[in-house]
Amino acid sequence: MRDVFIAGVGQAQVGERWNDSLRDLAQEALSPLLDRVGHDGVEALYVGNMLSGELASQEHLGALLSDHVGWRGLEALKVEAGSAAGAAAVRVGYLAVGSGLHELVAVLGVEKITDAESGEIASAMALAADGDHEAAHGVSLVNQSALLMQRYMHEFDAVHEDFAAFSVNAHQNAVSNPFAMFRRQITSEDFAKARMISDPVNLLDSAPIADGAAALLLCSEERARQISGNAVRIAASSVATDTVSLAERTDPITFEAARRSAYEAYHQAEVGPDDIDLFELHDAFTVLAALSLEATGFADRGRGLDPARQGEIALDGSIPISTMGGLKGRGHPAGATGVYQIAEVVQQLQGDAGPNQIPDCRVGMAQSLGGIGATAITHILEAA
Amino acid sequence: MRDVFIAGVGQAQVGERWNDSLRDLAQEALSPLLDRVGHDGVEALYVGNMLSGELASQEHLGALLSDHVGWRGLEALKVEAGSAAGAAAVRVGYLAVGSGLHELVAVLGVEKITDAESGEIASAMALAADGDHEAAHGVSLVNQSALLMQRYMHEFDAVHEDFAAFSVNAHQNAVSNPFAMFRRQITSEDFAKARMISDPVNLLDSAPIADGAAALLLCSEERARQISGNAVRIAASSVATDTVSLAERTDPITFEAARRSAYEAYHQAEVGPDDIDLFELHDAFTVLAALSLEATGFADRGRGLDPARQGEIALDGSIPISTMGGLKGRGHPAGATGVYQIAEVVQQLQGDAGPNQIPDCRVGMAQSLGGIGATAITHILEAA
Repeated sequence: MRDVFIAGVGQAQVGERWNDSLRDLAQEALSPLLDRVGHDGVEALYVGNMLSGELASQEHLGALLSDHVGWRGLEALKVEAGSAAGAAAVRVGYLAVGSGLHELVAVLGVEKITDAESGEIASAMALAADGDHEAAHGVSLVNQSALLMQRYMHEFDAVHEDFAAFSVNAHQNAVSNPFAMFRRQITSEDFAKARMISDPVNLLDSAPIADGAAALLLCSEERARQISGNAVRIAASSVATDTVSLAERTDPITFEAARRSAYEAYHQAEVGPDDIDLFELHDAFTVLAALSLEATGFADRGRGLDPARQGEIALDGSIPISTMGGLKGRGHPAGATGVYQIAEVVQQLQGDAGPNQIPDCRVGMAQSLGGIGATAITHILEAA
Repeated sequence: MRDVFIAGVGQAQVGERWNDSLRDLAQEALSPLLDRVGHDGVEALYVGNMLSGELASQEHLGALLSDHVGWRGLEALKVEAGSAAGAAAVRVGYLAVGSGLHELVAVLGVEKITDAESGEIASAMALAADGDHEAAHGVSLVNQSALLMQRYMHEFDAVHEDFAAFSVNAHQNAVSNPFAMFRRQITSEDFAKARMISDPVNLLDSAPIADGAAALLLCSEERARQISGNAVRIAASSVATDTVSLAERTDPITFEAARRSAYEAYHQAEVGPDDIDLFELHDAFTVLAALSLEATGFADRGRGLDPARQGEIALDGSIPISTMGGLKGRGHPAGATGVYQIAEVVQQLQGDAGPNQIPDCRVGMAQSLGGIGATAITHILEAA
């Protein structure tokens, strides 16, 4: 298939957007793209969303939102893969342009969550777990992350404080991101004292569920050159899955889907972990960050805490992660998160990351997880 | 992009499947495909579903169902576009194979609805309407179809009995379809006497919401020839949308998305309405059948009842519709319906439609609608 490029990004402020609807959030994220290409020329809109049916009483977002932003009539579909929905929509946009069928499409991740109360939100998020075998028995994604963290600490002789560096790094990087929910630093002491959520996962292990929307313009090379002076090439796009139920996994503390998806992406892009200048990973919980680093080849099994403890995940480290705040600092608007991650990689590759800019940034990777790693979607982007 | 073929179909019995879960239905539809290609070789599963979050407390169907049927690890995503979700999943499978990225993928439409009580189901279906401007005020899709039918009768001097032929034809054709929900004939008298649902829409104007699942194997030409002696080519695939809210349409009794999508498909396939040997349309309500025939060029504006009254929609007519029972007779498992429609066109093109076989069948069309025509997805298939 032919190459696919990203020629524009848009991001809405992440947070508790109580005064704004799904439509408002979509409009905010798509506005920079509309400014760039107007109402003509875009051939399709692919929407990533996980929870609008459950929490906003609205499905059929493709038709609804393309009409709302002025693209009435357009091809428009919604894509879902748990909290990897945004990355899944990027995947579909990539197929649509890569096939040669479309020259220019928009991808939108959008989520409106925080009007609901916290019990409703936990139940809604658990729709990405196994309904019959997990959620029906009251197990939430937080509980499952706690089980993983317990197991990880037991298996590899780690203590809870070892995970602090992930959260401290994410919050540090969020300070300079105008779209981030939590633009404030935290310390290891804050982390140690944070309120317990589901032992051993505390508040500062956990990314905040939030409202938000992010958008991308995907296009052919020819259109990319017309639209943007510094478009970014999608060098790889890969989706893999695993059992949704944690209990069915032979080794729950190995993220097999994340591994498969990443190595397939390395193969497509003809790169390896050493070539990656930054990695936007799915740090919904600190233990997921450690497991993601192991699955993707940045750390050996059981050594996923090392890059954090040794400062290698910082902006000037060997593998910067969560460079604009990650899920922890920027906030985690579920089905929109995967699009934010890719938008942030684009920012870095375009030299548009402000104080968080990684120097000489040529190759970036984003990996989005659905459920507890049951879906993993990896994109590798290269400066064109 | 390269040609895409359909090399296998599977259908589950449509009905009130109270003893069967989403997993069971998926397994039943995918079994014939698994028998054909086994557990290796399929590279992705695209799932069309509209209501599993709302009515089955389960999202993340891609990972869940691919694992359940023995395809653990596969790329798997869910696609939604209201009740056109199944056709939307076919669209994504078409892009994946057409792009050259995958050689062989499976598409599944699956829906588990009837465990809920009827009020819940009506609310769930209305997730495809405009939540803020329609559903929140208590307007259901049935009510909206009633408004359209009233308007149609007023505008074009029609009476309710004029719509009977759609329902009589669909039920007649369902008799010989082993997967159909209602395998019994009805008469015009039955139609006239049927219980009123939302004036003037009565019970026999309305397709029954049901449980069900249908599946397709999509592949490259080379793989098609290996797998099947009579694969079918997808000659066109097209998606268009309109305002979700009926009130925002300039002319509610013209289905603009259905028109755009159909004419784009004719253009792709280099055919016109005269070349179409059968048309599986979205007869969720009889008035939708009339409006679909008009939008797709089989009848002029205001004349959509003529083909039904004149017997042209019968198996031996000039434009057979609902040849295996349509939504009305086969049943309407929401997000699975679009895949059933395409599976039925494949059956006809392969000469596998039993007593309902249309002779010399070379070109067939399926069109799936989401909401009240807000999304329209058209596929044209040709015997290879």
